[in-house]
Amino acid sequence: MNVLIVFAHPERRSLNGALLDVATAELQAQGHEVKVSDLYAMHWKATVDQADFPDLPADERLKVASASSREFAEGGLTEDVKGEQAKLLWADTVILQFPLWWFTMPAILKGWVDRVYAYGFAYGVGEHSDRRWGDRYGEGTMAGKRAMLVVTAGGWPEHYSARGINGPIDDLLFPINHGILFYPGFTVLPSFVAYQVDRLDEAGFTILSEHIRERMRTLATTAPIPYRKQNDGDYQIPTMELKPKLEKPGAVGFSLHIAGEKTG
Amino acid sequence: MNVLIVFAHPERRSLNGALLDVATAELQAQGHEVKVSDLYAMHWKATVDQADFPDLPADERLKVASASSREFAEGGLTEDVKGEQAKLLWADTVILQFPLWWFTMPAILKGWVDRVYAYGFAYGVGEHSDRRWGDRYGEGTMAGKRAMLVVTAGGWPEHYSARGINGPIDDLLFPINHGILFYPGFTVLPSFVAYQVDRLDEAGFTILSEHIRERMRTLATTAPIPYRKQNDGDYQIPTMELKPKLEKPGAVGFSLHIAGEKTG
Repeated sequence: MNVLIVFAHPERRSLNGALLDVATAELQAQGHEVKVSDLYAMHWKATVDQADFPDLPADERLKVASASSREFAEGGLTEDVKGEQAKLLWADTVILQFPLWWFTMPAILKGWVDRVYAYGFAYGVGEHSDRRWGDRYGEGTMAGKRAMLVVTAGGWPEHYSARGINGPIDDLLFPINHGILFYPGFTVLPSFVAYQVDRLDEAGFTILSEHIRERMRTLATTAPIPYRKQNDGDYQIPTMELKPKLEKPGAVGFSLHIAGEKTG
Repeated sequence: MNVLIVFAHPERRSLNGALLDVATAELQAQGHEVKVSDLYAMHWKATVDQADFPDLPADERLKVASASSREFAEGGLTEDVKGEQAKLLWADTVILQFPLWWFTMPAILKGWVDRVYAYGFAYGVGEHSDRRWGDRYGEGTMAGKRAMLVVTAGGWPEHYSARGINGPIDDLLFPINHGILFYPGFTVLPSFVAYQVDRLDEAGFTILSEHIRERMRTLATTAPIPYRKQNDGDYQIPTMELKPKLEKPGAVGFSLHIAGEKTG
């Protein structure tokens, strides 16, 4: 299959860079095609601004969604953005790899999302009616493709555990996994997270490498996070609230949107 | 008092820009000093890279935390970063204002955090021992200052409610409120969130303006989010897990870190 890795670390000679090499080699050994968008090497423009919409008159007020919609429809987005959109369409699986900075992705990767996820491409897709609220959350342009995060963190696993002070890692990553990957239709695999990466010795790297190789070998078979699809009947339209009693007793917050055993 | 507003919208002639004007006027009417960091107008560099650490030899491997630590200690960070750090030290209250893009801040504001929050300034502060794990989460450089978010969203309030498909707004903003504001010591006020901003008419703007004026009038008196301080005894050290039975029955995830009635 075709795998796109979007890589967002400022230093290629880093643990992240080494893990990228390990993952790429393993994917190629399995016969997959791999493309890497190394955002720092590409000098990726991180900021959405007027220059992203070349056909917008210079003195016209910038409304991002409508400008994005018009330029996407007319093929007028900038070449760097169109190139990344083409890679997304080419890929069967997309991996976002980044160091966790301030509990989310670095700015350069957020800027990749902000710019590449055009209106009509990643949002604003599909019809709104009393039975559908657009093609999103499990439907959309990326439907049928898989995606996952590869994340490195300086903190300890305990700090990101159920009672850890940083918050549970799955909750910290929910806005990305659910809001950025599931939203335009990706099937989302559990994240690969490496902790205490500033203290990693050679033995630790060997173990980590084997873990990421195993994840690369099982991309097609790993069970995804069972997020609820928006238009399959679990949500009220148009309030988009989860209907009563679908969740496990006691489930609240983000976990409502993951299908569990129905006991209600 | 001194108020810093960090503003991250690409169009000054936007609802966000209008709310910025309303907030600024109200603060000045109350006798406060206001500074605005309009990141787009400043052409803020969003990406952390080698150029942020001028004393780092060009061929040396970039380790962000150690480079940041050394340059901060030696006064060698770039002038734009030092300017923002000076504004933070000047301010009694800091407001981050932005449109919610993909369930978090735009890249340009994330890049402000990534670059301005140097090691030794916003993290890597204080001693580690069996009683303290650095000055963070309620202690640190920003201790004694207040902070809050002003956020605009296109979606409906229901979509961000307790059972809404996007996830509860307070959980989506937790990584910012707790991980970016509380972490270096700010006292964090509840966020101001405006919904359905693409459909706002004049009457709606009048109501919204009055709401933000009221929040600006009560900056000093609004009750903060009662996040638990890290070093006050609620957490095990060094695993930084919340000690048993401190939370309300049934509380999980991010909500563990907000002090409630102790019923355990």
